[in-house]
Amino acid sequence: MTILTLTTDFGLKDGNVGVMKGVILGLAPQAQIVDLSHLISPQNIAEAALILSRSAPYFPAGTVHVVVVDPGVGTSRRPLAAQVGEQYYVGPDNGAITLWLEQAESQGLKRRFVHLDQPRYWLSEVSHVFHGRDIFAPVAGHLAAGTPLEALGAPLDDPVRLALPQPQRTPTGWQGEIIHIDHFGNLACNLRREHLAGQKVATVSLGGVNIDGMVNTFGERPPGELVALLGSTGNLIVSVVNGSAAARLNAHLGDPVQVTLQ
Amino acid sequence: MTILTLTTDFGLKDGNVGVMKGVILGLAPQAQIVDLSHLISPQNIAEAALILSRSAPYFPAGTVHVVVVDPGVGTSRRPLAAQVGEQYYVGPDNGAITLWLEQAESQGLKRRFVHLDQPRYWLSEVSHVFHGRDIFAPVAGHLAAGTPLEALGAPLDDPVRLALPQPQRTPTGWQGEIIHIDHFGNLACNLRREHLAGQKVATVSLGGVNIDGMVNTFGERPPGELVALLGSTGNLIVSVVNGSAAARLNAHLGDPVQVTLQ
Amino acid sequence: MTILTLTTDFGLKDGNVGVMKGVILGLAPQAQIVDLSHLISPQNIAEAALILSRSAPYFPAGTVHVVVVDPGVGTSRRPLAAQVGEQYYVGPDNGAITLWLEQAESQGLKRRFVHLDQPRYWLSEVSHVFHGRDIFAPVAGHLAAGTPLEALGAPLDDPVRLALPQPQRTPTGWQGEIIHIDHFGNLACNLRREHLAGQKVATVSLGGVNIDGMVNTFGERPPGELVALLGSTGNLIVSVVNGSAAARLNAHLGDPVQVTLQ
Repeated sequence: MTILTLTTDFGLKDGNVGVMKGVILGLAPQAQIVDLSHLISPQNIAEAALILSRSAPYFPAGTVHVVVVDPGVGTSRRPLAAQVGEQYYVGPDNGAITLWLEQAESQGLKRRFVHLDQPRYWLSEVSHVFHGRDIFAPVAGHLAAGTPLEALGAPLDDPVRLALPQPQRTPTGWQGEIIHIDHFGNLACNLRREHLAGQKVATVSLGGVNIDGMVNTFGERPPGELVALLGSTGNLIVSVVNGSAAARLNAHLGDPVQVTLQ
Repeated sequence: MTILTLTTDFGLKDGNVGVMKGVILGLAPQAQIVDLSHLISPQNIAEAALILSRSAPYFPAGTVHVVVVDPGVGTSRRPLAAQVGEQYYVGPDNGAITLWLEQAESQGLKRRFVHLDQPRYWLSEVSHVFHGRDIFAPVAGHLAAGTPLEALGAPLDDPVRLALPQPQRTPTGWQGEIIHIDHFGNLACNLRREHLAGQKVATVSLGGVNIDGMVNTFGERPPGELVALLGSTGNLIVSVVNGSAAARLNAHLGDPVQVTLQ
Repeated sequence: MTILTLTTDFGLKDGNVGVMKGVILGLAPQAQIVDLSHLISPQNIAEAALILSRSAPYFPAGTVHVVVVDPGVGTSRRPLAAQVGEQYYVGPDNGAITLWLEQAESQGLKRRFVHLDQPRYWLSEVSHVFHGRDIFAPVAGHLAAGTPLEALGAPLDDPVRLALPQPQRTPTGWQGEIIHIDHFGNLACNLRREHLAGQKVATVSLGGVNIDGMVNTFGERPPGELVALLGSTGNLIVSVVNGSAAARLNAHLGDPVQVTLQ
């Protein structure tokens, strides 16, 4: 029983996600389909890349991750399938795979890519505007049902990668930026556990406020207090205990974050 | 393994959709349940009819579509089950099936209807306000588990149909209206591929703006540009590339759209 | 095929719910996973308790309900699993089980509780901030796959209970309060069918308005009219027919509701 995950910017009201599931289940009736997110900000490929890279490590071998954030649908952008470790990606070749691929590379995992160029694995009629339904869902269904990756298209070795902002070393620590704001209003930045390993944080500064040191978890401090901590996937997070740091600090994606080390 | 889809105006926060799934799975433990939408505008049967008609063609034979947008719950409106082609409908007899039925008629597909009047297929206690849980979920569960349609109630041949707005021929082309605004702010109107077949669009006009001609897909034009195109289900769509036409034009359901032909 | 339900305050955009499903399906590949709600108000344990208690009665024996509304994550609050009747609870020991437990007690159903203290049933690495992924999902997966409750931890007999507001008898009837506002803007209060049994309601008063008597269902009155009725789970509900009572009355959780009996 293969697991497929779906990540899109389609929202939840129009039925488009359900239609993709109908196509998949028509080909792989036993599939377990899991929604990762359908509330990726419209056309925000970097956000999809982040969600995918944080989620994939918790899925078993064989899982097929379908990601459709696809502003280039119907243009010359290539449709892609890939093997990353023992899991799979199906979606546009637009960089949504970037962070997951970097993880896999750092761990020496297998990576293979194919250009989806075999229309016999697509719906018979392909629209110009909804390849999620017409190409990616049927390809994912075939993959889940046992079609090997190499049958789906010709090999390629240059998948598109996003140029994502990297944290910079400063004389007193690190400068990063906010890369995700979650449902609770927690602010995740591109500084990670690895950047801070073996060092002690003196202050985290953003939006004109300084936070002294870090905590392990929210409940260490009273509700309403601003805290910095390592989130569950290793990113530096700024939070308000039982509240919203995004609202408190009027924070936005891309806002700078300074870390001063002791 | 039968597929069931659910379409409601229940929203996602109150657990009511989950309760329906609990009832269904108690009767059909192997069912694959797919959410089409639970964000139908409250009491908007026409919107449910549109989502259902766009989605059903992508599901395999045997699928049971449960639609519960039900302002008449607990009144004299009939509970309905139907066979449409090789798929099924379960829900109130309030017209949500209209567009799907018209499709099926135009294709000469089978249609059968029953008035759900057999309480032995319902929950033992039926509330006045939640037939989704008490009647439609258990009926769908029984249908998915193999109970034949004709056992569920007496035949009927006059299912309720919505009187939906039809596009009108004008001296220079067509006059239609906006019938759906999607998650991205794309505006779908009731003019369809069939209306424009073999003709060439000169301009699409709405909200005081004129759009010259049509494109095949979003990426043909730069971000921010207003375009007209055929959407993935054949309706005329007005979009802003990587933006929201609804916000740009302050557009609403029912707003008129003029098409001038060359 | 075991059913698991998930109830959280995680929202739907960040992928955290999907990650929990990945962990569960890795352990229990045949599980049927049902979302009850992921839009519980942040940190609102009482709301989770209400949704759980309204939903559980509609699920079959063996269902495992995973509830993660967890402001105390990473502190000394205990992780809990419980058997309630023939179903199960997995989540923090913070009172989310309160109302379901009261139902079970009133019906004389079985109750057993264990303190989750066996890390061999958790992920190998446990974060300080996401026990839904690291403890509760794997424990639920093991339970669904057949691990007996008693293997998961030491027995305990004092699960945390919430002190929830109780309706009060008044000289002319009852005084209660609003405990839930649903997607439609219906106002549910803590007065229940049991409080009103055998009596006749003269007026329901809240927010400066008086509603005469009660109806059985919405469709008995014209759209826009304010009505009181018994909801599908037995609570007194105040609604606007085809509208939002919350918007009309500017109502909030905790607002008082008076019932005058005839």
